Amino acid sequence: MSLTLEQIASLQPFAEELAEAAAAAIKPYFRSKLAVEDKGGRLFDPVTVADKAAEQAMRTLIISRYPEHGIVGEEDAARQGTSNLTWVLDPIDGTRAFITGLPLWGTLIALNDGEQPVIGVMNQPFTGERFLGTPAGAWCNGQPLKTRACSDIGSARVMCTTPDMFDNERQREGFFAVAADAQLVRFGGDCYAYCMLAMGLVDAVIESGLKTYDVQALIPIIKGAGGVITAWDGSDPQQGGTVLACGDAVLHEQLQKRLAEFI
Amino acid sequence: MSLTLEQIASLQPFAEELAEAAAAAIKPYFRSKLAVEDKGGRLFDPVTVADKAAEQAMRTLIISRYPEHGIVGEEDAARQGTSNLTWVLDPIDGTRAFITGLPLWGTLIALNDGEQPVIGVMNQPFTGERFLGTPAGAWCNGQPLKTRACSDIGSARVMCTTPDMFDNERQREGFFAVAADAQLVRFGGDCYAYCMLAMGLVDAVIESGLKTYDVQALIPIIKGAGGVITAWDGSDPQQGGTVLACGDAVLHEQLQKRLAEFI
Repeated sequence: MSLTLEQIASLQPFAEELAEAAAAAIKPYFRSKLAVEDKGGRLFDPVTVADKAAEQAMRTLIISRYPEHGIVGEEDAARQGTSNLTWVLDPIDGTRAFITGLPLWGTLIALNDGEQPVIGVMNQPFTGERFLGTPAGAWCNGQPLKTRACSDIGSARVMCTTPDMFDNERQREGFFAVAADAQLVRFGGDCYAYCMLAMGLVDAVIESGLKTYDVQALIPIIKGAGGVITAWDGSDPQQGGTVLACGDAVLHEQLQKRLAEFI
Repeated sequence: MSLTLEQIASLQPFAEELAEAAAAAIKPYFRSKLAVEDKGGRLFDPVTVADKAAEQAMRTLIISRYPEHGIVGEEDAARQGTSNLTWVLDPIDGTRAFITGLPLWGTLIALNDGEQPVIGVMNQPFTGERFLGTPAGAWCNGQPLKTRACSDIGSARVMCTTPDMFDNERQREGFFAVAADAQLVRFGGDCYAYCMLAMGLVDAVIESGLKTYDVQALIPIIKGAGGVITAWDGSDPQQGGTVLACGDAVLHEQLQKRLAEFI
């Protein structure tokens, strides 16, 4: 890490300030009648007024407080910083959950030190839950998070946002091959699924087609809670693409080997 | 109706009292480490200690206050009443959501007057939301609910708990035929999806394999908010089976005709 634990801890309150600014921008629009704009991607991927307003609010705060930091966000162009620190922002991860009224979306905020995300925040203002991860640990509203032991897929609870998210039919087959052996499969989770994994309630999240801003904030939360998160080929997942998160390292090793055949 | 609106209104506080008793029984177990028991059904259908405790709490209250009323619950044998009124109880609808930590499960409570459910409650104690429907209307925490106008499937948001829930391949095909034309499809909702429909955020919920206690409480909520809910063949859905709920009667008529071909 290019930052010390003390430096990371000193930036943590600012990450939470960003979460609060985003929440203030978003909350008036949750469950209101929204104009929805299709970005024209493969899936219906709505962008709301709230999404844009929240990213703008966070960008304004960052530029004002830390003009030397870079910014990568879902909604606007990347901003090159003069330091090696970059904020990676997804104001509303789970836009389909958002527009259907489900409180499973979240604001994702990561601070990347040039090598890896070292602070991750997932903020859900409707339920009032703030998940936070750093190299020192992971917490929900200050309560420590710990993944659970589950080394057997037959006892595992598996989540995935939607079976439509996979990049190709081969990946889809890979997901369903693993899911067929699981004790329980639940669709519809977005970032919330990863936080439930950090809480020890879910054993594996298996996804694909993620963007860098979809995953960076979740990495410190998963790792800080004792879990393992990689791409399906076992590599660093921070640039997005395929993602496999497990609460138990033994389960991760098993599933990663199986999924690697389906990339 | 065999009950007047005044009689229904007088029973409403008791329905809410049941919801509170269930919540008190359930809340200590939500997100705790639970023993899970497989009922041996087609899907993995966990029953938790909380489920049983909540139904027992509600049964005790009903037998004490209204010994003449019947009880139909998910967990215990039906109790024949001496009046034509029956309470229909599902202490935790959405057990898979419950055990994975998602706040989309709910306690479902219906009062059936011998012909139809005339009071429906969906209580979600983690988010603090109580949805209530009667022939006089529908509310969430006292705020009136109203479905939205959406007569075109191309503009519709469609929900379904899981693509694995359909009774047979033909029904599954029917769901996906309709879903292919929708603006947005979201899996993972349980009873919460129907409440979002009542709130005007979702346009259609298309499901199958429901039990009578999965659906009865939702009927007064959907109808009280201005929506339409039937089986796929257009018949009364109160005994469970296939269910089609729409916020807009025009959309319902279109989808019901299409789905009738896939029963």
